[in-house]
Amino acid sequence: MFDPTGPVLGIDPGVSRCGYGAVAGRSATERGSECRAVSFGVIRTSPDEPLPERLGRLQGELEALIEEIAPSALAVERVLFQVNVRTAMSVGQASGLALATAARAGIPVAQYSPNEVKLAVAGYGGAEKAAVQAMVVRLLNLPGPPGSADAADALALALCHLWGAPLHAARETAREPNTAYERAVAAALAKDGGSR
Amino acid sequence: MFDPTGPVLGIDPGVSRCGYGAVAGRSATERGSECRAVSFGVIRTSPDEPLPERLGRLQGELEALIEEIAPSALAVERVLFQVNVRTAMSVGQASGLALATAARAGIPVAQYSPNEVKLAVAGYGGAEKAAVQAMVVRLLNLPGPPGSADAADALALALCHLWGAPLHAARETAREPNTAYERAVAAALAKDGGSR
Repeated sequence: MFDPTGPVLGIDPGVSRCGYGAVAGRSATERGSECRAVSFGVIRTSPDEPLPERLGRLQGELEALIEEIAPSALAVERVLFQVNVRTAMSVGQASGLALATAARAGIPVAQYSPNEVKLAVAGYGGAEKAAVQAMVVRLLNLPGPPGSADAADALALALCHLWGAPLHAARETAREPNTAYERAVAAALAKDGGSR
Repeated sequence: MFDPTGPVLGIDPGVSRCGYGAVAGRSATERGSECRAVSFGVIRTSPDEPLPERLGRLQGELEALIEEIAPSALAVERVLFQVNVRTAMSVGQASGLALATAARAGIPVAQYSPNEVKLAVAGYGGAEKAAVQAMVVRLLNLPGPPGSADAADALALALCHLWGAPLHAARETAREPNTAYERAVAAALAKDGGSR
C-alpha cells in the first residue's frame, strides 16, 4: 500500500466533514509547475447517526482512501486552539482516527498548524482563509474552487508538506534562520506555541 | 466476537494511559452479589514515541481486548469539560478510537459523563474520585484497589452501564422522575448540560 513516490494526502479532520486532498509533485523547486491535484473531496457523516457508527464509517473511508491513493505521506492539520472544548473533542476524535489509520498502514505522518499551512501556501502566517483557497486554485491550476473549504484546506496541507519538508530539513542543518523566509517560518512556529 | 451475554467493558480513554475494566453481571437487581470484575488494567503508550504510532498501537490493543473479552457492550467516558483544549484533543483522540473500534466490531456503545458514573456507583453525582474507587473495590469484592485510578474508573463505567441501563429504560417510560433517586439522576444529567 505504501508508495514512497506517491502523492501527499492532506487531511483536514472533522467528524461531520473531513476534507481530503492528494497532491503529486516532488518539492518546492517544482512549485507551480509539477504539482497537481490527484484527488480531493470531503468525507461526510450524518449527525442523525450515533457517534460510534459515524467514527467507524469515517475510519473505513480513510482506509479506502489510503488504499486507493497509495500516498507517500499524510499531512494532517494540527489543531492547537479551538473556540470551545466540544469542538476540540470532535476534531480530536477525527484526527486520532486519521493518525492511527496512517500509522497502521505504515505511512509517515506529519502534522502542520494552520499558521504553517498559511505561510507555506500564501507566504504569510496570518493569511485569510479565502486567500489560502485562492492560492490553492492558482498553484494547482484548478478550473475553479474545490467546492468545499475543507477540501481546499486539505490540498493546502498537502502543498505545505511537499514544500515544507525540504525547508524543515534545511532548517535542521542551520544554526540560525538565514533568510527572511526562514525567519518568518521560525516566527510563525514560535507564535503557534510549539514545534514539531 | 459479539456476545450479548458477555461482560460490559468500561473504557476511560487517554493516550498515555487508557483504563479498561470488564464486569460480568446482569442488572441492578444483582447489585453487589453477582457482579464481578473479569479483567481490568491500563493500556499505556510512551510519550517518547511519535503520536501516530501511539494511537495505532492503542487501537490495536483495544481490538485485542474486545477480541479477548467478547463484551456485550462498551461503556466509554463522555468528557464534557476539560481543564484545557490540549487535554480535550488528546482525550478526544483516544475516545474516538474506542468508539470507532467498537462500532466496527459491531458492539453497542454507551457514553456516560463522570457525574452519571459517580451517581450510579457512589449514589451522589458530586462524589470524590476516591469515594468512587473505594465503592468499586467494595462492590466487586476486589482484594484491594485496582492499582490504577484509570482501571478503577473503567470498572465504575462498566458498573454504571450494568445498573444504569434498566434505570434509563424505566425513565423513558415515565413522564416525570418518580423517586428521589430518579430526580437525582435527572438533576445530574441536567447539570452535565446534555442528555444521551
